[in-house]
Amino acid sequence: MQHSEGQKNQPIEILTVGRITNEKFVNLYEMRYRDKIGREKTWSYASRSDPPKAETGRFDAPDAVVIVAFHETSGRLVIIKEFRIPLAGWLYGFPAGLVDEGESIEACAERELYEETGLALARIRRVSPPIYSSSGLTDESVAMVYADCVGTPSDHAAGSAEDIEAVFVSAADARDLCARRDIAFDVKTWLVLEAFGVSGKI
Amino acid sequence: MQHSEGQKNQPIEILTVGRITNEKFVNLYEMRYRDKIGREKTWSYASRSDPPKAETGRFDAPDAVVIVAFHETSGRLVIIKEFRIPLAGWLYGFPAGLVDEGESIEACAERELYEETGLALARIRRVSPPIYSSSGLTDESVAMVYADCVGTPSDHAAGSAEDIEAVFVSAADARDLCARRDIAFDVKTWLVLEAFGVSGKI
Repeated sequence: MQHSEGQKNQPIEILTVGRITNEKFVNLYEMRYRDKIGREKTWSYASRSDPPKAETGRFDAPDAVVIVAFHETSGRLVIIKEFRIPLAGWLYGFPAGLVDEGESIEACAERELYEETGLALARIRRVSPPIYSSSGLTDESVAMVYADCVGTPSDHAAGSAEDIEAVFVSAADARDLCARRDIAFDVKTWLVLEAFGVSGKI
Repeated sequence: MQHSEGQKNQPIEILTVGRITNEKFVNLYEMRYRDKIGREKTWSYASRSDPPKAETGRFDAPDAVVIVAFHETSGRLVIIKEFRIPLAGWLYGFPAGLVDEGESIEACAERELYEETGLALARIRRVSPPIYSSSGLTDESVAMVYADCVGTPSDHAAGSAEDIEAVFVSAADARDLCARRDIAFDVKTWLVLEAFGVSGKI
């Protein structure tokens, strides 16, 4: 279902990518490009990669993993309640974290799940391709790791500066949580919990 | 399931929020805060709001709407293939866009669906609370609008500089698309299509 394109239209062309800031974990970039009708324009966006992916072409490696962990003995999904600085408050989300240099997606999922909840990853069911968080705003991508986990939640492994609480969620809990407007939810977590609330499965 | 906290721990405290850049659509901010064990630290993040939400407390209004549109006569979900500047390439996503000043979520959904696909919003099934795109990186939130739509896709309403193609997706298409590693997917779209591939419903 290709759009018809007028004769004067041409493919969008990237001209330059420039870094605006000099931060450690995330920077703002400005891209100059030529639009479909030949006008030069700019687009500002955030990236965790320096240089950003549009410059390196490294779109194959996700910035972070997000772990959808099903706790076998309780039959519940594991989410976390975490203090998020940009929200100046608490967020319900999945255990997640940035992939270390040279770390595999599977190793990162196992490490982050343990660090954030004390639970052990038992087996990975499937892993998504790198998928994009909000592609108008950032080139950040994540891999969703669907897994089974075992153990009892504890915070002994968490960094002392992190404020994280593990929450076990049944399908009925998921339906209740998704309907609440007094709590903040990560978008991925809300979407997976909505489906889990209906099917009871991941 | 509250974590036990040592005596020296205290709640995380926000100290200041400062803007680092001076861009029109998105800026980088640096937040100074005191962590659980009393150390002063900084956190850099991107925001579309100026001042950012941590300063204004306006967490109730989503930055953008994302439209999950079910096309009644064809029984398919509507997604778009769109050129995204930060990815320097094509992305499969849902029709979506920023909420204009004073615009309702419902009006924004109807406008963006029409502008990006030429389809008409027939009825809204449900709307999510504002949910967060990637809360370590940004305070951006979106409302997911689940709706039925009618009409035939066309590009007559699209801005001339936008490069967008509507794609109709059956449950079988959704299963195929979600497994592909040669295309870039928005995370919300991938998650909804994965569930749609199993249930055939939204």
